[in-house]
Parts: sequence; C-alpha cells; structure tokens
Amino acid sequence: ITLLTDFGLQDGYVGVMKGVIWGICPDAHIADITHTIAPQNIRQAAYILARSAPYFPPGAVHIAVVDPGVGSTRRPLLVTTPQAAFVGPDNGLFTFALDEPGARAWKLDRPDYWLPDISRTFHGRDIFAPVAAHLACGVAPYVLGSPIADPARLTPLLAERHGNNHIIGHVIHVDRFGNLISNVPATWVAAGNWT
Amino acid sequence: ITLLTDFGLQDGYVGVMKGVIWGICPDAHIADITHTIAPQNIRQAAYILARSAPYFPPGAVHIAVVDPGVGSTRRPLLVTTPQAAFVGPDNGLFTFALDEPGARAWKLDRPDYWLPDISRTFHGRDIFAPVAAHLACGVAPYVLGSPIADPARLTPLLAERHGNNHIIGHVIHVDRFGNLISNVPATWVAAGNWT
Amino acid sequence: ITLLTDFGLQDGYVGVMKGVIWGICPDAHIADITHTIAPQNIRQAAYILARSAPYFPPGAVHIAVVDPGVGSTRRPLLVTTPQAAFVGPDNGLFTFALDEPGARAWKLDRPDYWLPDISRTFHGRDIFAPVAAHLACGVAPYVLGSPIADPARLTPLLAERHGNNHIIGHVIHVDRFGNLISNVPATWVAAGNWT
Repeated sequence: ITLLTDFGLQDGYVGVMKGVIWGICPDAHIADITHTIAPQNIRQAAYILARSAPYFPPGAVHIAVVDPGVGSTRRPLLVTTPQAAFVGPDNGLFTFALDEPGARAWKLDRPDYWLPDISRTFHGRDIFAPVAAHLACGVAPYVLGSPIADPARLTPLLAERHGNNHIIGHVIHVDRFGNLISNVPATWVAAGNWT
Repeated sequence: ITLLTDFGLQDGYVGVMKGVIWGICPDAHIADITHTIAPQNIRQAAYILARSAPYFPPGAVHIAVVDPGVGSTRRPLLVTTPQAAFVGPDNGLFTFALDEPGARAWKLDRPDYWLPDISRTFHGRDIFAPVAAHLACGVAPYVLGSPIADPARLTPLLAERHGNNHIIGHVIHVDRFGNLISNVPATWVAAGNWT
Repeated sequence: ITLLTDFGLQDGYVGVMKGVIWGICPDAHIADITHTIAPQNIRQAAYILARSAPYFPPGAVHIAVVDPGVGSTRRPLLVTTPQAAFVGPDNGLFTFALDEPGARAWKLDRPDYWLPDISRTFHGRDIFAPVAAHLACGVAPYVLGSPIADPARLTPLLAERHGNNHIIGHVIHVDRFGNLISNVPATWVAAGNWT
C-alpha cells in the first residue's frame, strides 16, 4: 500500500491512516510516496503518482488524498487496472490510471467497509484507508463499490508550439534539486531552431 | 509500534530507533506519527498522541519522546491500558492514557532490557525503543518495570467562559492547512450569543 | 534495509525505491535514516550513516545515495563487513565501513540484477535499490559484483591542536536542536587550558 497526500508530516494524520490500515490488514507493507504535495494541488499529485506507481509490484494499492472537495458531493473512488488499485477522491487524481487498458472505475458506496464514524473532513482515515486495507487483504472491488462510467478526469494541460522556435508550456513540478519538470515534449525541443 | 518525537527527520535519530527495535523484535511494524513536534512542547505532543492512538489496533505500543528533562532525575515510564502501551519520559505526555479505565503506570527500572550503554541525552534509542520492542514481542510490563502510583500529569488547560458571549481559550495546535485547534468546547460556541 | 539520501521527501523518489525493493524482496523491512542530507554533501552523509548503522541488526543492508557523480564514470559500489552491507556510489560515503576489519569492496557490474532500463540520473532506483533487495533476500555479493581493491575514500578531516589552548576544528553536522557536532576530540577539550 502506498500513501500520497497533501497532509504534511507534522500533524499525525498520516500515522493514523497507517494505524487504520494495520487494524484491518495487519501484514500490509506501507510506503509513503510523498505527503508534501502543495495543498490541494491535484495536478501535481497526479503527476507524481503517475511516475511513481509503475515501480511498485503487481497488486499494489495506492491511496492518494488531495481533496479540495471533501465534505461536498464528490464521490469516493476506486480505480482498478490489471496491475494495481487506486483509492481516493473522484477529482481527476487517477486520470492516468483510467487511461490504461483494462482500467475500471468504482464508486465506493459500501459503508460496512469504512470506519463506523465518518468525519466531514478526513475521508483518508475514515473511508480510503479502510477500503485500501480490505483490498490489500483480498476483498474484491465489486464488494466495496459499484461500477461507474463517468469518473472525473483532469483536462489535459498541453503545451503549444508556434512555428519552429516558439513553445509555450507549463511547469508541472519543481523538485528538491531545483529541476523544473514541464509538459513540453523533448522532441519539440530537439526539433526546434534555437539560435 | 508507533513513534512520536520532536527529533525532526534530518539527523537519523528516528531511523536508529527503528534499527534498535528490529534488533529485538524483527517483525514489528513501525509507523511514524510525527517527528516535528515543536522542540520540547509536551502539551502539543500529548494532544497529537491522544487523538492518534485510538486508531491503532489493540496491542499497539506507542513510543513518545519529547523530553526536556532527559539527563535529570525524571523517570522512564510505561503506561498500560487495556488497549495499548505507552513508553516515554514521565513528564505528563501520557496524561490522557492514565485517565483511561484500567490504566497502570510503571517505572522502567530493569536495565537488562535496555541497550548496554545508556547515553545522557538519547533515552529514545537506549531505553524507550528497546523496552517497546520487548513489549511488542510479548515481554510483560512487570518484567520491565515496577508499578508506581504517582506518574506525572499535565495540569488541565481549561478555557474560561464569562457570561454568554465571552470565552477565553488556548490554541493547542496549528495544522498544516492553517486550522487552529483550541480547547474551547464546541458546545460553548454553539450556545453562545454572538451578535 | 535502510535508506539515506539527499532526495528530500517531496518528490516521491524515496517511495519509488521502496516499491522497487518490495518488487524483488517482498518481506524486507525498510527504515529511512534521513533524506534531508544537504544536497551532495558526502561528508555529512558519511557521518550520519557511520553513527546510525551500528544500531541496526546483523545482516542489515544500507543504501546511501548522495551522488554528485551520477552519470559520470564513478562506479556503483557494494561494501560488505561481517555485520552489514552498504550499497551506493563509489565516492567515499562508506569510508568508515571500509575501515572495519573484514571489510570487502565490490564493483557492481551485473546488470541482470538491476532494473532493465538505467536512467542517467536515478541510480538509486535503477541500480542500488534492486541490488540491496537481492542482498536482503540472500543473493551473494560475488554474484552481484567483482572485488575491487581501490574503493574511493574520504580524506580524513582532522582538527589541529596548537599548544594547550588553541584548537582549530570543523563543524560536521548541525542537528535539529542546534547542537554542533565537530571533529575535535573530547579529550583535547578536557586536556586544554581554557582560562
């Protein structure tokens, strides 16, 4: 099971999610991907999850919680692919996984598999952690939710190319070493005429 | 086993505690609650531990080290409840656990269950981590310490209410999202006359 | 398995290394020592690793990645001692381990035990994590590399003593509490004439 959130590490929220998971699935291995996503930055979270998830072994369950809509009517979501499962809010975080062949989306609507009391603001603890723990210990997706056809997706954020020497792109992430990751394809840069 | 300290993550202190635990109890699962408690802020640590511990499964062992009195005569402490065990300095960190029905306090006084060399400043590594590991692997509390009747407690920090529209309280914690957590009961706010 | 890097925690790099490890050795326990080594500060990393590693149980595999030379011709290195194994770049990080009796150094040159695609900049994920996972699950050092006699070492950074009351030393590390760790031997200070 992996965890990716914008919770930070100072408040104990992440530790609590691990406690909930181990209460349901005692032998789960849990890895933090990151908890310092910029608050409510869904696109940054989606980018880091998309490049990290492929390195985990088959059967991994990825929890991602960057959730500006918590407490509203946004649905709790499960996405399954042939390789992995993704649990979190239905706000586009899992767009890349939905694009994989064989991907399926499920609305989580079986509170028997959640904690007994659901808070308004901490679905990571109350819904997503317990559902991920049940998945990791073998409960099937159809037991945990109902198939849906319209999960939320992020609109693609495309760079623009004007002629041979003019590109407009977006910086998606700045890493610890100051490297900027943009959405400009490397082939555009290679093909450009930069004098 | 959970860990909560004011050590930060940069110095390797927390990793060393995990090494000590696994040397004694190789299959222990270890979760970090937080390590960025404000240095020596016992009250903040007690608050975060109290709200996190109930989400861990029965039998959990919680190590908390926020320890301004290390090197003085403050005692190393074990608190047991029907659900969990708490290991750390005797300075009030575990007040909430001592208030639970069936709680018992023990002075840790059996150096056979500690590391061979005890430093003046790192009892988390030398005393608390080994004791917690022995507990997690089944050693009984009475083997590790002696019962005591006078563990340290934090004095309650109570909000005051003056009439129907005047409350004086304290902010106990500021979380990553800027939410302030105070000691003012929600019922006081609901019952107030705020014009 | 322990991890020590200068990657920080915000980019998901550390989580990815754990995914790679569990894909090869599913039951490995993994502890973070620290990931906030100052970027490319080999000496600080070597200091923290040297003081942390002895607290881990026999058979521990320590991955350290502070790697200004990644992408150059610096070799990937394995150091084995009777107690532990160390995996990382050949740049002096493991000087202290090489000084232990029975230490041996190996150049990692068996790509069958790496990930299939080797990036130019992330050998922690592509080489060091898989090699450490194979070691933790029982693969022998001679299967993973070839013995070498000339691993890189840090030049000792020695303090100087001039007479009885003049010492020139270096601060090697500043910890979270503001403590300065220097390379001045305590005996020099004790023996000095400080009026």
